[in-house]
Amino acid sequence: MHGVDARPGQHQVPSEAGSPGSGSGSERPPAPPAPPPPEPSHGERCRTLVASTNRGALSTVAVDPPGYPYGSVATYALDDSGNPLLFVSTMAEHTQNAFRDAKASLLVAEPVPGGGDPLAAGRVTLLGDVAAVPEGDERAGVRDRYLAANPTAAYYVDFGDFVFLRLAVRAIRYVGGYGRMSWVDPARYAAAEPDPLAGAPAAGILSHMNADHGQAQVLYCRHLAGHPDTVSATMSVVDRYGFEMIATGPSGKAAVRLGFPEPCSTPDEVRRAMVAMVADARRLAAAAPDTP
Amino acid sequence: MHGVDARPGQHQVPSEAGSPGSGSGSERPPAPPAPPPPEPSHGERCRTLVASTNRGALSTVAVDPPGYPYGSVATYALDDSGNPLLFVSTMAEHTQNAFRDAKASLLVAEPVPGGGDPLAAGRVTLLGDVAAVPEGDERAGVRDRYLAANPTAAYYVDFGDFVFLRLAVRAIRYVGGYGRMSWVDPARYAAAEPDPLAGAPAAGILSHMNADHGQAQVLYCRHLAGHPDTVSATMSVVDRYGFEMIATGPSGKAAVRLGFPEPCSTPDEVRRAMVAMVADARRLAAAAPDTP
Repeated sequence: MHGVDARPGQHQVPSEAGSPGSGSGSERPPAPPAPPPPEPSHGERCRTLVASTNRGALSTVAVDPPGYPYGSVATYALDDSGNPLLFVSTMAEHTQNAFRDAKASLLVAEPVPGGGDPLAAGRVTLLGDVAAVPEGDERAGVRDRYLAANPTAAYYVDFGDFVFLRLAVRAIRYVGGYGRMSWVDPARYAAAEPDPLAGAPAAGILSHMNADHGQAQVLYCRHLAGHPDTVSATMSVVDRYGFEMIATGPSGKAAVRLGFPEPCSTPDEVRRAMVAMVADARRLAAAAPDTP
Repeated sequence: MHGVDARPGQHQVPSEAGSPGSGSGSERPPAPPAPPPPEPSHGERCRTLVASTNRGALSTVAVDPPGYPYGSVATYALDDSGNPLLFVSTMAEHTQNAFRDAKASLLVAEPVPGGGDPLAAGRVTLLGDVAAVPEGDERAGVRDRYLAANPTAAYYVDFGDFVFLRLAVRAIRYVGGYGRMSWVDPARYAAAEPDPLAGAPAAGILSHMNADHGQAQVLYCRHLAGHPDTVSATMSVVDRYGFEMIATGPSGKAAVRLGFPEPCSTPDEVRRAMVAMVADARRLAAAAPDTP
């Protein structure tokens, strides 16, 4: 078992974390190692990934050939605790399997960009037991959640031979790419919230920052992230706790992460945090005038 | 069990299959029902789909929690019979699982276009037993195949803690979308060939036909496919046995399929077949001058 499911206990103010001269390429003595910038916990990364789509690979125990693990495509919604809610034909193989043996898992994987390394993308396996959602009030709520996540199911949601199943998660394996993996505590997963910026908000922020604010990113890298020789930078990730950039300089490329002073829930909060961080960077640049 | 794994026994010449007046919207008496145009067998569809990518969902039987079917992302190549060749870290969960219990499956699914219905896309589950590929000549061939299909693995292909596994397929479930599904005979799958036009050749043909040959498609629909009131048409599928179009007319849209006179292996063979079919359509149009 690798890694841990622990978010850093406190959020670091980047202007403290990334003091000038702490990076390579400077002739000043290195500053003491800064605490790592805050980032989403593995529980939060799992909740965010599972909430980002409505399609996964369901594994059940096959009736025939008996005992074989059987992978199939399943569509889902989520309950408040992140347990998958499935809607399946009673005639389908996976349903017949689950009726005989409740043990199941749902694998959800990030899309892989064309030509990208499939093993560098994130994925999560939710293991647990499947049970039919009983008729009554609960089923109505499940139906609404399922339709919200799966609008194309409106054509058959009221067919009599379909059934709602809940996968009650009891174990979680997270693999975020090479070297970033752990077993995640199901209670932490259940309590975690998907990243409020995931999807379109993050895509909009990245697009805007890379189109219009390359110089701000260079300032972040030079003065807040300890890469004073940065010539250009590209933002690759933004989440509630901070953002990541690829900094390019004479010695090559480096991946850097900076934390926001406080977690951000909206693009507007991100904008204000990033503006404040530009001011921090300019102040530090003025205090160290030999930096380029 | 639904559907069959049987290709139509002979290829139909479309100019016979789709004689004028056989469709709705005509005032002439309907022709006798034509045999369906040839199309890929389910075994061929499975081979084509599995060969179209290098990434699937591997299901194994978990060591912990014991007995749970465990889904994970796996990259693969294929041997001559279409058995998946996996390359996995000995430390990974799925490898530990497979070493304890060889029963496994690999799910391969077509990509879903944005906003598309995930359950309308094709997928195949290959079930069988996993075994390590022994050292020696066979391993060298497997390594070459794996690297050809997974160029990003060049970074770690010679690490000592990775192993090649072969999934010997013993059962196959195919789901081509709503209502198109069957258990496929593994011997037929092993003997089938991936469609020679799949991927870039087919994409190029569709793009060219839709950009430059809308009028040819209207002729096909009117005079070969029994839709004499077609106003416009778009080609959606091409494979070795034929092609599919969406025909639009006063009464709405219809999906039509036409078979090639002979199976085609290259875009050039497709081009010649399509040119001949335009000549057929024009000849039939001239013989029925009241058709628009």
